Amino acid sequence: MTTKVGIREVAKAAGVSVTTVSHALNDATSFRVKAATQEHIREVARDLGYAPNRLASGLRNQRSQILGLVSDEITTTPFAGALIRGAQDAAYERGYVVMVVNSGMDSELESREITMLQQHQVDGVIYARMYHQNAQVPAQLAGLPTVLLDAATEDGSISSVVPDEVGAAETAVKALIQAGHTRIGMINNVDDIPATHGRRQGFLNALRRAGVQHDPGYYVIGTAHTEGGRQAALELLGRNDRPTALFCFNDRVAMGAYQAATLLGLRIPEDVSIIGIDNLEIIADALWPGLTTVALPHYQMGRWAVNRILDDIESPGNPAVQTQMDCPLIERGSLAPPPS
Amino acid sequence: MTTKVGIREVAKAAGVSVTTVSHALNDATSFRVKAATQEHIREVARDLGYAPNRLASGLRNQRSQILGLVSDEITTTPFAGALIRGAQDAAYERGYVVMVVNSGMDSELESREITMLQQHQVDGVIYARMYHQNAQVPAQLAGLPTVLLDAATEDGSISSVVPDEVGAAETAVKALIQAGHTRIGMINNVDDIPATHGRRQGFLNALRRAGVQHDPGYYVIGTAHTEGGRQAALELLGRNDRPTALFCFNDRVAMGAYQAATLLGLRIPEDVSIIGIDNLEIIADALWPGLTTVALPHYQMGRWAVNRILDDIESPGNPAVQTQMDCPLIERGSLAPPPS
Repeated sequence: MTTKVGIREVAKAAGVSVTTVSHALNDATSFRVKAATQEHIREVARDLGYAPNRLASGLRNQRSQILGLVSDEITTTPFAGALIRGAQDAAYERGYVVMVVNSGMDSELESREITMLQQHQVDGVIYARMYHQNAQVPAQLAGLPTVLLDAATEDGSISSVVPDEVGAAETAVKALIQAGHTRIGMINNVDDIPATHGRRQGFLNALRRAGVQHDPGYYVIGTAHTEGGRQAALELLGRNDRPTALFCFNDRVAMGAYQAATLLGLRIPEDVSIIGIDNLEIIADALWPGLTTVALPHYQMGRWAVNRILDDIESPGNPAVQTQMDCPLIERGSLAPPPS
Repeated sequence: MTTKVGIREVAKAAGVSVTTVSHALNDATSFRVKAATQEHIREVARDLGYAPNRLASGLRNQRSQILGLVSDEITTTPFAGALIRGAQDAAYERGYVVMVVNSGMDSELESREITMLQQHQVDGVIYARMYHQNAQVPAQLAGLPTVLLDAATEDGSISSVVPDEVGAAETAVKALIQAGHTRIGMINNVDDIPATHGRRQGFLNALRRAGVQHDPGYYVIGTAHTEGGRQAALELLGRNDRPTALFCFNDRVAMGAYQAATLLGLRIPEDVSIIGIDNLEIIADALWPGLTTVALPHYQMGRWAVNRILDDIESPGNPAVQTQMDCPLIERGSLAPPPS
């Protein structure tokens, strides 16, 4: 069913013994085979389309070279693609593949999926959440190398990578301040998650550092989607002393702020500047003018998680690390100096 | 590294022999073990968290119970999640897992990824494209059960599933006609792909069937994103005899049509009705009013592809089938009778 070219066919075509082929293909640099011969054998194998049987070799060396990626809700988030691709690119570079499963937030299904990954002898599991959160790793994963992606445990016992939420908000608000704004509103999320708290902190930090007075009336919370953003922005932009710039919890909230500005007859960015967080391109590029925003580094977090777990697999015993990743400013067209 | 509970532990806890456990767990219904005993052994195995070693069992029965899903550009499309989840759900129901790899449209990388899937002894490969297109399956996949997802070969030699593009457009335009519109514009894509031709055909079919005259000036093409949609809609809605309804190639084009309507001071749906295709929720739900559109059945196509390939694996020799999947109307708020 799979490849019909075996090690014998490679040996015959290369004019060497099966043992020599085995050394040449399995050892990174073989002491038993001359470098030129090894290169020749590898070329022959490549030309013939020889694929070593990893299933059998996994049984021998106790490595399947498969990583599991367990996620909660792959379909409802537009970020899953970048996360998964980052993980797959890093895995591929080190000779591994990633088997992706997702539970739709059903813990029983998740448990059955993890069992299935264990049956396939995965070498480690990346436990990914589709937005930054505190998570508990299922007890089932005990004993298997595990890394958390876009999530962290309270006790820091497992290596994890999350976006630097405070830093992301500081970057956004600093961009508004540098453009000359001092009347800056924030539309935050209502949910009790790390992003809500971190982004509020970053907002306050950036104002304080620049010596800008924080007006509590300029801080509004709403549900973190377009309609919530529209309503919150109508409240802020409907004031007589309206803010000249809005920092929005995410790009969807910012899209709602665009709708509110249109309703109120305000031009972006001439009358009001708007900035988001996410760099969700399907929104940020499609809005008119394009949305200036701060990117969440999903691709880079996916890469980091795989590289970390492979380091743990290859040299066990490293202390767990908690990584916060930088979030860069992405400039489009929604930021300008305040109206004079 | 994986489970420490083996078949011996299950046998001991269930009070039966290892052979009996093996029959009870490996045969769907075993003639060698009484049904009640089989059920008892399965319960014990479940309670102990016993996970049969699929890697070893794959070597015995020549099935890895892994399917490969090879896609072109998982990160740049918001549809990948639904496609993959449909595939994974169907695979899970039949005891398989899906290993997802993506090439970023780099054919050399794709070839190396397929080799890697073959090394892991996948039982079959779903070759997915992220939008409906004619595709050639790599020669490398010859001999391995293969199904095309959101793509088809010219000669129909491989089973495939794609959306019914003509039917999707007919559904959209019929909804406009039923609301009373006769001056209906279409903004189509410039790309030479099946969706472009099929949707044009469906547009013309629906008009002809309803006896509505087609005005060639109401048919405009543009690039299939928001900016292209905005420019095309400005052209159509800027006419003195402007259409009262726009059928847009996709939801992003429809978002551009919303921007054009706002620029021209036209209300949706009171002054102009707008309908899309995709049901890309992050756009269709976020627009205001919500966008009425026709859904592309990505989840269902993912399911179909997996069920078909497992049928082919379990009973080889079925003739290839080409499936076109129905696309349902999703009503939100962008459709109303024409202004009187």
